[in-house]
Amino acid sequence: MFSPLLVLVQGSTPASIIGPMQPRHLAILGVGLLGGSIGLAVRSRLKGCKVAGYGHRAAALDVALQMGAIDERYEDPAQAVRGADFVILCTPVGRLASLLAEIAPVLSPGTIVTDVGSTKRAVVEAAEQSLPPGVHFVGSHPMAGSEKRGVEFARADLFDRAVCITTPTPHTDPQALTNVESFWQTLGMRTTRLDPVEHDRLLADVSHLPHAVAGALVAMQDDAALGLCGKGFLDMTRIAGGDPGLWRDILLENRQNVRASLKRLEGHLNELDGLLEHGTPDQLEAWLRGAAERREGLLLRRADS
Amino acid sequence: MFSPLLVLVQGSTPASIIGPMQPRHLAILGVGLLGGSIGLAVRSRLKGCKVAGYGHRAAALDVALQMGAIDERYEDPAQAVRGADFVILCTPVGRLASLLAEIAPVLSPGTIVTDVGSTKRAVVEAAEQSLPPGVHFVGSHPMAGSEKRGVEFARADLFDRAVCITTPTPHTDPQALTNVESFWQTLGMRTTRLDPVEHDRLLADVSHLPHAVAGALVAMQDDAALGLCGKGFLDMTRIAGGDPGLWRDILLENRQNVRASLKRLEGHLNELDGLLEHGTPDQLEAWLRGAAERREGLLLRRADS
Repeated sequence: MFSPLLVLVQGSTPASIIGPMQPRHLAILGVGLLGGSIGLAVRSRLKGCKVAGYGHRAAALDVALQMGAIDERYEDPAQAVRGADFVILCTPVGRLASLLAEIAPVLSPGTIVTDVGSTKRAVVEAAEQSLPPGVHFVGSHPMAGSEKRGVEFARADLFDRAVCITTPTPHTDPQALTNVESFWQTLGMRTTRLDPVEHDRLLADVSHLPHAVAGALVAMQDDAALGLCGKGFLDMTRIAGGDPGLWRDILLENRQNVRASLKRLEGHLNELDGLLEHGTPDQLEAWLRGAAERREGLLLRRADS
Repeated sequence: MFSPLLVLVQGSTPASIIGPMQPRHLAILGVGLLGGSIGLAVRSRLKGCKVAGYGHRAAALDVALQMGAIDERYEDPAQAVRGADFVILCTPVGRLASLLAEIAPVLSPGTIVTDVGSTKRAVVEAAEQSLPPGVHFVGSHPMAGSEKRGVEFARADLFDRAVCITTPTPHTDPQALTNVESFWQTLGMRTTRLDPVEHDRLLADVSHLPHAVAGALVAMQDDAALGLCGKGFLDMTRIAGGDPGLWRDILLENRQNVRASLKRLEGHLNELDGLLEHGTPDQLEAWLRGAAERREGLLLRRADS
């Protein structure tokens, strides 16, 4: 029987026995709020890991370099990934497919590629189609962020205690999946796995539709009403301040699910409208109580986790 | 020419010259979160003012007394208001009309009565019908609160820097209006005036409908989606945790306006749905940008104020 050390030396061990590998040379493609925060977190938690950054705006790259979020700046994604063992795509989701096509020819076998997109079906499909054999893609959705935009708002602790969803498929390399999960855990995240199609369906309900509704709630107000808004309204519409270009991509890419979510929301609103029209006070209270208890349960569940 | 002091001694001065009067004997009817917070604030900012409290739950009265939110406890509203020069109704809005009828016979001329209800048309009408001549009603809506319920969450600073809407009508006594505004200002609030009907229309848009939408957004989620919710969803649905009985009353009393607001929201959501179905990316981005800019303007405006 080999000892673990001997196994390691032999070089024939399943990687799961030697544990997850951490990146030594990371390429971050897109240095905005998320990309910049990943860079800062990696530089503080993964000492010795080189961080290359690509961005299409020279000014953002300069800021990222100055903040210490990246070690090297590139204005060409193919140059940025050269030599990297771990690549994270951090551009808006509408740019992911073309970015994969641009870097595919220069990635070495063994490289792990992941992303931070809020929709997953399309990027997983694009990666499985365009990346060469031996390059391992694992979809990721770190659920952290802000309605703020730009690398100047990046923070090393942005991911702390937040959830990262990974979206493996039957084609996903198990070791690459473990490595990607381990990476997010190093940044302070809890990880969970979902099928990419299921991910997009659930996120339409709990994230993409709410964003659209926040926008509609702001858009419908006249100035006099807005002048009276309280903390409740401000909290409720905070996410409407998010980057319009980023959200355009998310809503378009997930449009079928978002439209289905919208239809279901309208069903619930119509139910309420019916109660306002001809329901009893008790029925209306029961509707409100159901929502309040569900919200309460959500807080308790999160407090537990 | 009289000096101001002489005028005061003569006793013939219009009250506006001698300035607003502060209550010396306040009765708070309903000692929950708002009533209790008013009591705490008055006891810290209006030294020497006696505070009588009425509540229908003996336990809440005990807590209010123990916290120092009231000086005297009453389980009968008519007893609580005896001798008071300033009465604040702090029960759920569905209880206000009956409460006014119960206290009307024992209020002395000169007494000022106000309330803290989130709807105003009905209470203003009820007060103008049921209060005796010489008792002055002024509707108030201090826009402060919490999704928490009960006097145990009361805080002396709950009203600090928040807005209080008063809702005078042509029948409102101008000096009583000034006194009520001065009272809220003493508690740290900025005051503004609105016609009660206009108040209810605007608040349906900016407060009552958002509450209903937050409830629908929670109700429509399945457990798997709720398990993935992030800070954006939590913030957006916080108000759905509000007291169902309280909100039942508000939605029922303002049902016509809330239904009209709901119809307008659905118009905006349908517009978005149309853009998702056959709009261009630019059109969708413009819709999102409009909402984001309106939200941004709102923050700037509040920062100014």
